[in-house]
Amino acid sequence: MEALGRAVEGLLSSYERDGGVNHSTGPNLPSRAAVARALEDLETLVFPGFREEDGIDDTNLGLVAGELVHRAARALVREAERSLAYKYRLLGKDGCPAACHLEARDLVLGFFAELPAIRATLMTDVEAAFAGDPAAKSVAEVILAYPGLEAIVVHRIAHWFWKAELPLIPRIMSETVHGKTGIDIHPGACIGRRFFIDHGTGVVIGETTLIGEGVKLYQGVTLGALSVRKEEGAVKRHPTIEDSVTIYSGATILGGATVVGAGSVIGGNVWLTHSVPPNSRVYLPEGDAVLVEPRRPA
Amino acid sequence: MEALGRAVEGLLSSYERDGGVNHSTGPNLPSRAAVARALEDLETLVFPGFREEDGIDDTNLGLVAGELVHRAARALVREAERSLAYKYRLLGKDGCPAACHLEARDLVLGFFAELPAIRATLMTDVEAAFAGDPAAKSVAEVILAYPGLEAIVVHRIAHWFWKAELPLIPRIMSETVHGKTGIDIHPGACIGRRFFIDHGTGVVIGETTLIGEGVKLYQGVTLGALSVRKEEGAVKRHPTIEDSVTIYSGATILGGATVVGAGSVIGGNVWLTHSVPPNSRVYLPEGDAVLVEPRRPA
Amino acid sequence: MEALGRAVEGLLSSYERDGGVNHSTGPNLPSRAAVARALEDLETLVFPGFREEDGIDDTNLGLVAGELVHRAARALVREAERSLAYKYRLLGKDGCPAACHLEARDLVLGFFAELPAIRATLMTDVEAAFAGDPAAKSVAEVILAYPGLEAIVVHRIAHWFWKAELPLIPRIMSETVHGKTGIDIHPGACIGRRFFIDHGTGVVIGETTLIGEGVKLYQGVTLGALSVRKEEGAVKRHPTIEDSVTIYSGATILGGATVVGAGSVIGGNVWLTHSVPPNSRVYLPEGDAVLVEPRRPA
Amino acid sequence: MEALGRAVEGLLSSYERDGGVNHSTGPNLPSRAAVARALEDLETLVFPGFREEDGIDDTNLGLVAGELVHRAARALVREAERSLAYKYRLLGKDGCPAACHLEARDLVLGFFAELPAIRATLMTDVEAAFAGDPAAKSVAEVILAYPGLEAIVVHRIAHWFWKAELPLIPRIMSETVHGKTGIDIHPGACIGRRFFIDHGTGVVIGETTLIGEGVKLYQGVTLGALSVRKEEGAVKRHPTIEDSVTIYSGATILGGATVVGAGSVIGGNVWLTHSVPPNSRVYLPEGDAVLVEPRRPA
Amino acid sequence: MEALGRAVEGLLSSYERDGGVNHSTGPNLPSRAAVARALEDLETLVFPGFREEDGIDDTNLGLVAGELVHRAARALVREAERSLAYKYRLLGKDGCPAACHLEARDLVLGFFAELPAIRATLMTDVEAAFAGDPAAKSVAEVILAYPGLEAIVVHRIAHWFWKAELPLIPRIMSETVHGKTGIDIHPGACIGRRFFIDHGTGVVIGETTLIGEGVKLYQGVTLGALSVRKEEGAVKRHPTIEDSVTIYSGATILGGATVVGAGSVIGGNVWLTHSVPPNSRVYLPEGDAVLVEPRRPA
Amino acid sequence: MEALGRAVEGLLSSYERDGGVNHSTGPNLPSRAAVARALEDLETLVFPGFREEDGIDDTNLGLVAGELVHRAARALVREAERSLAYKYRLLGKDGCPAACHLEARDLVLGFFAELPAIRATLMTDVEAAFAGDPAAKSVAEVILAYPGLEAIVVHRIAHWFWKAELPLIPRIMSETVHGKTGIDIHPGACIGRRFFIDHGTGVVIGETTLIGEGVKLYQGVTLGALSVRKEEGAVKRHPTIEDSVTIYSGATILGGATVVGAGSVIGGNVWLTHSVPPNSRVYLPEGDAVLVEPRRPA
Repeated sequence: MEALGRAVEGLLSSYERDGGVNHSTGPNLPSRAAVARALEDLETLVFPGFREEDGIDDTNLGLVAGELVHRAARALVREAERSLAYKYRLLGKDGCPAACHLEARDLVLGFFAELPAIRATLMTDVEAAFAGDPAAKSVAEVILAYPGLEAIVVHRIAHWFWKAELPLIPRIMSETVHGKTGIDIHPGACIGRRFFIDHGTGVVIGETTLIGEGVKLYQGVTLGALSVRKEEGAVKRHPTIEDSVTIYSGATILGGATVVGAGSVIGGNVWLTHSVPPNSRVYLPEGDAVLVEPRRPA
Repeated sequence: MEALGRAVEGLLSSYERDGGVNHSTGPNLPSRAAVARALEDLETLVFPGFREEDGIDDTNLGLVAGELVHRAARALVREAERSLAYKYRLLGKDGCPAACHLEARDLVLGFFAELPAIRATLMTDVEAAFAGDPAAKSVAEVILAYPGLEAIVVHRIAHWFWKAELPLIPRIMSETVHGKTGIDIHPGACIGRRFFIDHGTGVVIGETTLIGEGVKLYQGVTLGALSVRKEEGAVKRHPTIEDSVTIYSGATILGGATVVGAGSVIGGNVWLTHSVPPNSRVYLPEGDAVLVEPRRPA
Repeated sequence: MEALGRAVEGLLSSYERDGGVNHSTGPNLPSRAAVARALEDLETLVFPGFREEDGIDDTNLGLVAGELVHRAARALVREAERSLAYKYRLLGKDGCPAACHLEARDLVLGFFAELPAIRATLMTDVEAAFAGDPAAKSVAEVILAYPGLEAIVVHRIAHWFWKAELPLIPRIMSETVHGKTGIDIHPGACIGRRFFIDHGTGVVIGETTLIGEGVKLYQGVTLGALSVRKEEGAVKRHPTIEDSVTIYSGATILGGATVVGAGSVIGGNVWLTHSVPPNSRVYLPEGDAVLVEPRRPA
Repeated sequence: MEALGRAVEGLLSSYERDGGVNHSTGPNLPSRAAVARALEDLETLVFPGFREEDGIDDTNLGLVAGELVHRAARALVREAERSLAYKYRLLGKDGCPAACHLEARDLVLGFFAELPAIRATLMTDVEAAFAGDPAAKSVAEVILAYPGLEAIVVHRIAHWFWKAELPLIPRIMSETVHGKTGIDIHPGACIGRRFFIDHGTGVVIGETTLIGEGVKLYQGVTLGALSVRKEEGAVKRHPTIEDSVTIYSGATILGGATVVGAGSVIGGNVWLTHSVPPNSRVYLPEGDAVLVEPRRPA
Repeated sequence: MEALGRAVEGLLSSYERDGGVNHSTGPNLPSRAAVARALEDLETLVFPGFREEDGIDDTNLGLVAGELVHRAARALVREAERSLAYKYRLLGKDGCPAACHLEARDLVLGFFAELPAIRATLMTDVEAAFAGDPAAKSVAEVILAYPGLEAIVVHRIAHWFWKAELPLIPRIMSETVHGKTGIDIHPGACIGRRFFIDHGTGVVIGETTLIGEGVKLYQGVTLGALSVRKEEGAVKRHPTIEDSVTIYSGATILGGATVVGAGSVIGGNVWLTHSVPPNSRVYLPEGDAVLVEPRRPA
Repeated sequence: MEALGRAVEGLLSSYERDGGVNHSTGPNLPSRAAVARALEDLETLVFPGFREEDGIDDTNLGLVAGELVHRAARALVREAERSLAYKYRLLGKDGCPAACHLEARDLVLGFFAELPAIRATLMTDVEAAFAGDPAAKSVAEVILAYPGLEAIVVHRIAHWFWKAELPLIPRIMSETVHGKTGIDIHPGACIGRRFFIDHGTGVVIGETTLIGEGVKLYQGVTLGALSVRKEEGAVKRHPTIEDSVTIYSGATILGGATVVGAGSVIGGNVWLTHSVPPNSRVYLPEGDAVLVEPRRPA
């Protein structure tokens, strides 16, 4: 097994040589698995009775809620502290451990104080999903089986931490649900109430997107940037979608100055890089979009 | 930690206030995790030797099959009973527990009686995948590594329960495999033998879709609805795809009256909302579909 | 419970009848779960400090690396041996167990000898991701939260085993990460340094694709085949993408003879089946691509 | 596998035939595993920082305590409810579910209100162990590694529930720690402060034993009953041990009327069935207890 | 980390040098963990509703029983096969794999055919425990919390396999429950119906012990051998205990020719190496067994 | 749930009030669970093929050994570091973290360098067990099923760390195996080669015991102290047992000056507090030790 011994030595040398992007020194980074577990607790807190296998009833609800709130808080405090230590190290600051801890704790307590309000907003998303999909047979089905709902639950949580300027964790959260649903919403995106994504696979919503109330998206929709020059990072690069807009599958809407006016409908596979006024109907021209001819024998 | 105590109280108030969509009272809903585990057992039963880590051989095959059949049956009876209790509660009926249990058990026993026939159909899907992909080196590779096959395995199981009018569970099943593969087949869709989806991410097949035999789909294909008015829920809203049709990646076919005739080929990214006759070849027009010009210096 | 007894008998009969594709006899196939766990170890070895929950520091790094190298090697030797036994059985050869084991071990030792070099290439991919996405706030964020990076990590590992002509395992690896990220890169694809996929859901890269250095892809890009006749399996069926090409979301590029010249930019949703010279700019024509009109009242 | 089918039928018949002691009907009994997990949480609450693998510090102590209190309370309420339902069924009462639940909850809340006082008593046991064993190098060692301490921790908890007349659960608790330590203390025994058992394997302390303050026992001590006639169940059958008594290994003290006076020392292997006055010294007579002779060659 | 590399080399050399007792070559030995899990399944099959956390009721009892029977059978067949391979290797025989498998399967099927009868005997042990202990409040308490019952459950199972001359597994079973209860019954011991061990820690019952019906033992009882010469291995070395004998704690009874006549009572700590007639009462002489004197001041 | 909130507050107050023995501040103590897992790895390293469920063969033995050595070393370094930090805090020293780490690592590397020698000694214990028990059918049975062997394996490991003056961990190790086997050997005891404990429950061997080569003990033997005055902690308080002594079940030998001469046999239940010369035979006098009389009717 000397060959493996040499392989280990080779890797250790590699860590030293390529140390710039390797994170074996310094404070630990937040753990993806720990953040994912905390998200599961938060989802159960938002929809008690829908996620846990053990029965929840009126009488043990308080016990369950108490356990989950404390467990998730403990995990988030620890991961937030790691994120803050990383942030201050990037800023060239030393010695934050103690201060980081208090900052992390206050941040997490602030989040839990806000969680009932976040939940109230999520209830509007549930209603929008049920109202918006003729295939939905019940509200319970929406909560149990709609990946678009899970994506917005996680987004509204991640977005809270994004606004609080906590690094890394919001992105870990958004990628956790991206991996589960195929829906990639950057935690920086601002999204109004009654938001619904149907099917959802392939949806991408960029960091500076603004979305109004009652907006509905289908699978494969991209709300993206035209320019990707790194130096422009801080500017608004992604579109604005006003209230009550519906965007069908595969449509691509790009650019920070692009505004889709309220009440508009964007058809499937549309490619849009300029603004359209309220109540527009944008679609691929029929007729010449496809050619139909008898199939030639293979 | 008083702050967290207040957070718990805030959530408990929120549950009372927004009780309409919160499921902490009444019988428990079916568990997503339990349904997912039962699906894994069923997949092992369909393809013994491909899913379990422990070795399966001719001599212990009967023991493994016996264990998995009973384990999956037990889980499905419990979850089916919960689904039925939910269904009867929606219908305003009381006191179903005992009746629900017998109904759940008969349903599940009926399913297992049908499982060998379902497996026979799935064998035709395996053959179609192997025949249809030049990259497939062996049948074993198809069973081990093709997400399109996993999606159709779960669909044929979920569809059986859908036809049996069991609520919630078929949709939980379809979302379980949607999360794993990015392929979203509504359990209501009727799909013929020798079905093959290659790559598969982003495929959406709606509730009232009818698909014939020997159909082949690529990633990103949508078989969807034109109208999404809730009140029309029960009508056929999704297209009909006849035998031996091939649909390339990113194509979108919409509408309950849209029929793609047998033997047709639909090209990539095509957007189709009307019927085409058998043996059609539908594609994006070449030539003006894209502009090519030298890149301007950045 | 006689009904279930009959169901078991029915399945056992089904296994005998449809034995051609059922793998309950012969040597065991490689385990998907075991390969997935080995991949997690390999990812931790590539990015120590980013994947494990327990803290890694300079002083225990050698112990962690030693444990993971041996654990992953043990698992890979076992699964590789199963793959080789399958391969030789397909070739009609008997009695490989002992030889398979030595071949498997040499193969895996060879892989670990190469792992530092693979890691060096992956560092260029990390840099490309950080440079290429204005939303990336730090290199740590890229490693923690970019599914495109995870896809290329697994691809470079799977591709090594593909070149070594080990069956099944490279495909299991690529499907493992496909399931997690929605990015489907065939292990046969050859991909140069500094490769970056943003968002990534729905990307498909075929078996005989050639990709140069510094290429950047967005979600939903297909690099696919025009012809799918099985008998042509061994020929180059997928395109060549030269250095420094950028391909925007939803673009589809098909055909083994199709070459996208160095420095070109392919716009979103473009459908391309012929070659374009270096520094081309290929995009959907504006103007007639979409119709905008006031929305008719519902 | 028909043979196994018959075995299952045989067992099912056996359950019907021997139904008197089989508990497959009626409410579920409390779960041993759930009680054992709750005990682990309670041990961590009594000695934070000694049982959990994750670090506990001053700042996350409140979060950990909150989580564990709620989690243990939830589990205990559920198991207590099952115990009460069993109790009322034995009493021939029907329909307790709702009442049981409230009774269970009040009971558990009462326990947690008392837990700080129980912990204060346990601190005296820790001190007694440290003072009483010359091999103990530190208080931390006592808490980490003395099975006698673990036995008394669980006993003081189980005894609280015994006094509250909750059936089954106190005995499950005492057997859980009996299995871990070999120390069998019936939950009915009354034990004073500063109690210490050294080594402990084989200690048996009966249901109606009374033990004063500052008592010390060694391994293999039995405090048992002379009479075991079932009809006398409710009387005091086990001895009384007054303050500051030491009992060495293997001693057996029997009988409900037997009183070991305060300050006495009972020597190893002594067999005692009558009372001794305070400050007695009871030991096996030396001299004729053993014969020593040269060993005969084998 | 070269030091660890050398440690690994040192161990590998050690394995080669001390190969006689090292089992890294040849067929695998049975797994202690697998046997322990199978025992848990068998205990649940004997007492359904007492061991499993999930609820068992009349309607799912058949499903649970079916699952456990098949799961335990599968595990036992595998471990029995390993034991038989070991046995035949000791006997100098080659090439048993196929035959071993059939022999193992027949053995295990034979065991399950007998399990209802074993269960019927165990019901008499439950009754004896309830009748024999005034502290037992209910039959449920006996099944949930009496280690002596668990020991006899496992013994009656292990003894069946002992009689079937399966090596290793019966001893692994007896040690599994010895570790949990402190009760060490050699699987070769023959024990009649209505057997009860109270408390049990430290009980040792040797290989050739014969125990009649209705016998009751307390903790620390040894039924052992006088002679331990290896060459006499096959003879009866342990005592015979006739019907309805009671043996109190700490008594030691030795020798293959020693017979305790029916209905006798053996007192605590008695040391007995010769036979006693039926209805004897054997006890330590009172009076001079202990000296009582006032304690001298320390 | 305010009641639980108050319970949490009560506990937090209790932690502050009784802070002297509560370990929520300062460096973390070593984890019992982590030490127990490391012991399992070490047991597998000592007896490869006897503890792991997965198969070990000659060809993967090096991989398994490499993984286990690194995994156990990592765990032990972490726990040893915690123990050393605790030790230096007790000594009033500050600031050891960095030094502790190096000291911990050197200690653990030193242990692994010695492990082959420890294993060689353990092989003599295996032989002694097989030779000494007529019930042992094979060496494999001894390694798989003799708790006395497991106790001495752990003792020889714990004793190494005891000699290295590492606090806490040796005692955690000895209690881990005490909990499993009922055999309590203090890690300070010095024990020669070819040591065998049969059955073992209730054995206690004190800190300053000296045991020669080829000694054999049965269950319930105590090698203990006469005096337990804390201030005498450092002196020899436990007996010396010379080579080739056999001590039967339940015997108690006490006192630091007590020497049992080589080749002696101590009979069952003997109570011995003075030295006996070599080749002594010490036993309870027969004849008057028990009274036998006909049983009086109940």
